[in-house]
Amino acid sequence: MIQSKITLPDELQRFNPVTVIGAGTIGVSWTALFLAYGLTVRVNDPRPDVKEVVLNGIDQIKPTLKALGLPTEGLTNRLEIEPDLDRALQGAAVIQENGPERLEFKHELFSKIEKVVSKETLLLSSSSGIPSSEIAKGMKNPERLLIGHPFNPPHLVPLVEVVPGEHTKDQAVQDAITFYRALGKEPMVLEKEIPGFVANRLQSALFREAVNLVLEGVVSMEDLDRIVTNSIGLRWAVGGPFLTFHLGGGKGGLPAFLQHLGPNLQNGWKNLGNPNLDEANVQTLSNHAMNSYGNVPIEQLEKSRDQKQLSVLKMLKDQQSSR
Amino acid sequence: MIQSKITLPDELQRFNPVTVIGAGTIGVSWTALFLAYGLTVRVNDPRPDVKEVVLNGIDQIKPTLKALGLPTEGLTNRLEIEPDLDRALQGAAVIQENGPERLEFKHELFSKIEKVVSKETLLLSSSSGIPSSEIAKGMKNPERLLIGHPFNPPHLVPLVEVVPGEHTKDQAVQDAITFYRALGKEPMVLEKEIPGFVANRLQSALFREAVNLVLEGVVSMEDLDRIVTNSIGLRWAVGGPFLTFHLGGGKGGLPAFLQHLGPNLQNGWKNLGNPNLDEANVQTLSNHAMNSYGNVPIEQLEKSRDQKQLSVLKMLKDQQSSR
Repeated sequence: MIQSKITLPDELQRFNPVTVIGAGTIGVSWTALFLAYGLTVRVNDPRPDVKEVVLNGIDQIKPTLKALGLPTEGLTNRLEIEPDLDRALQGAAVIQENGPERLEFKHELFSKIEKVVSKETLLLSSSSGIPSSEIAKGMKNPERLLIGHPFNPPHLVPLVEVVPGEHTKDQAVQDAITFYRALGKEPMVLEKEIPGFVANRLQSALFREAVNLVLEGVVSMEDLDRIVTNSIGLRWAVGGPFLTFHLGGGKGGLPAFLQHLGPNLQNGWKNLGNPNLDEANVQTLSNHAMNSYGNVPIEQLEKSRDQKQLSVLKMLKDQQSSR
Repeated sequence: MIQSKITLPDELQRFNPVTVIGAGTIGVSWTALFLAYGLTVRVNDPRPDVKEVVLNGIDQIKPTLKALGLPTEGLTNRLEIEPDLDRALQGAAVIQENGPERLEFKHELFSKIEKVVSKETLLLSSSSGIPSSEIAKGMKNPERLLIGHPFNPPHLVPLVEVVPGEHTKDQAVQDAITFYRALGKEPMVLEKEIPGFVANRLQSALFREAVNLVLEGVVSMEDLDRIVTNSIGLRWAVGGPFLTFHLGGGKGGLPAFLQHLGPNLQNGWKNLGNPNLDEANVQTLSNHAMNSYGNVPIEQLEKSRDQKQLSVLKMLKDQQSSR
């Protein structure tokens, strides 16, 4: 479905306007997505070149939004750059915070935020590591504070990990789900706070063994990447690790799979590597990276990756909606 | 490209005929693929119902071959079921072995094999765990023995891990690559033997943390799967873990990424789980599986997964050939 004009959908009316705090990669990506869905967005960041950074960023993201079937005409019409935090927060229905990952910073920021916004304002933090229960300490009204952690870049990758803390009211969780769904995202609510949440922990676990295999000289970096894209990557794009093994267990599903192959798996876990990212190993890995990818400009690798990513994404979305 | 008639391509002439040993899931899948590419295939398995198993298996695989653009008319014309090992081996240009994963079994089998086949026969083992250096012990002519480990199912997933042992001659490695490439596969040669090879080790590393997160009550099994398909799965279908972080490092690529985020990663690795697949946990995971997927028949889940898998695969292949 390709729309030519940007219009605010009904289900997003009560989430308008949005204040985006922090104009880094994540903040700018959220901004572009929010704008494409018709939201009025106020961006706050203390850096002096904030306007340039945001406008350039949106310019680069535009083609991807278009490719996703989103309207981009007059994309920045409802964009406001507001370097003053208090003014940026005035009247906001939603805050999407993307500041530095330091607890003291978040404490100070959210204590300022709650002084200005209404109690109805949804307070979402993109934090990838700090649970909102930590941020909430010292706040007077953390009932509507929770984590809305995207997988980079938020305008392209569907996942948003929604992680409430003990202080978060159910209604705020429901609102976060409604908000992100209306933006075409796939919000997934975690039942428990854990450092790194789910996607990054899983990514990190695989990456540890990937580092081990390259450092052990089993495979080059480029070959390891091709092994992944030609096997588990393909698999996990259409079914997660549990479903994959559930279907690998024959008629008995995952229970049969674990019964038969559990001891093997457990044994294999003992032999996985535990590499150290010390200076020498970082240097070795950096050399490998330059050998594998150094001869192609990053922009070109990125363009080729994003093109494939978009096609896969659109294809899976089409299949989903045709079911 | 859709062909209607099966013809043996020039580059496969010297690999004809092929003997497939073992008519389990992997063996039957190889058989169907080999047949679709015009090879004459002799299947050997001691089970009394081998003919039925192979024919039924090929029947189920046929639609997927078709969807991949392969010809399927008269698919079983060049199929021979030969329960006698010696007769099955006579004149074979290639052996693809898919027997049980027990070292003694492989020892005995390959000592029988080398007595019958010519020294030119390419000896490929689908073993997912036993390196060929182990199998080669006790053989007189292991120069053309090596691992050709597919990712299940071989007729669909592109990856074949090609793992030579110390005894394997270079020419045999080159031949294995030529053979698998001519079959539309993506053979990747490992530089070193390691238990579990690469894809399964990476898969296992991620699965360990997945098991940990479900056992810790952070997320349901189904939600974890959806988190993966909506983030890292999508990413890794189009670029492996190193390329992903190389592009996540900005202009500085992976070296900059590791410089900035290495300490964080290393720290995170310390906190990854180390679950035990004991009886109680296997029971808990089995219950989770039934809660998440028990209400949908396995065949239906499989069909839906395979359909998506095929579309993603075709799309990526089209993009590759159009580059």
